[in-house]
Amino acid sequence: MKALIISADSFEDTELLVPYYRLKEAGIAVDIASMQKGTFKGKRGYTVEANTSLADVRPNDYDLLILPGGKAPAVIRKEQKALEIAKHFFQTFKPVAAICHGAQTLITAGLLKGRHATCYTSVVPEMKDAGAIYEDKEVVVDGNLITSRQPSDLPAFMRETMKKLKNQ
Amino acid sequence: MKALIISADSFEDTELLVPYYRLKEAGIAVDIASMQKGTFKGKRGYTVEANTSLADVRPNDYDLLILPGGKAPAVIRKEQKALEIAKHFFQTFKPVAAICHGAQTLITAGLLKGRHATCYTSVVPEMKDAGAIYEDKEVVVDGNLITSRQPSDLPAFMRETMKKLKNQ
Repeated sequence: MKALIISADSFEDTELLVPYYRLKEAGIAVDIASMQKGTFKGKRGYTVEANTSLADVRPNDYDLLILPGGKAPAVIRKEQKALEIAKHFFQTFKPVAAICHGAQTLITAGLLKGRHATCYTSVVPEMKDAGAIYEDKEVVVDGNLITSRQPSDLPAFMRETMKKLKNQ
Repeated sequence: MKALIISADSFEDTELLVPYYRLKEAGIAVDIASMQKGTFKGKRGYTVEANTSLADVRPNDYDLLILPGGKAPAVIRKEQKALEIAKHFFQTFKPVAAICHGAQTLITAGLLKGRHATCYTSVVPEMKDAGAIYEDKEVVVDGNLITSRQPSDLPAFMRETMKKLKNQ
């Protein structure tokens, strides 16, 4: 079992670190991908190590995709390879868990049309414009897709993500 | 099942938030106690809400005590009630999980004599002086006591803490 987190500078620190530590607690290998390999920094100053670049990611290698929020998704959504990775996960029905602004990458990839989902309050208008059925809940599960709104939703977000992995 | 986290200003943010969210994920109620009720702030700027004061804590109500690190334990260890709570947990063999500087409260309470434990590198000398058998490992479990060194140990720390709760 292997998970992929895609993020970049100015990520929301807990939205990356809580899933990262939670998956490792369960013995799941986790790769972190960004534009380049090497360290990058969260809004609160935590640094994490991207052990792979987006260019080097082989989506087939992974069972779960995590998209944390913060300001990172504004940059990630402009990366063609990030969109391709997200599309691969949807086409193969593998779990994708996006929290807060993380859903922006899925919006740009055109993956939310007709899907039940949630996101950070400021992202709601573009989520609706993308054709998603927005719900104001701590976690929304629709098939392979798990979404949450904000850091305080992390317990529900990880509960549903871990449940989805068990049922794979 | 109910857990108690004791902390104060300048806590190490992830060492409080990761256990807090992890316990809530598992459906465990969590109280946060500090000198006063109300919000306090981590080193990285996250704020959390102490929903109870140390004075109001009834140790019998809880099944698990979490002691996060950062600079908070330097203050917490001076609080007589915090020491009494820690002693209650040891006397009743209920799990106590301390990470990083969190062990300082247990040192002051005189609870580590002859116990296998670990802590943040700068705390090692006083942990040894307190009679503990120090081990440089990501997590050390000795009876009711679970200790870890630093934030990167959080996956092992929570794995052992959750295991201990299941076996209660």
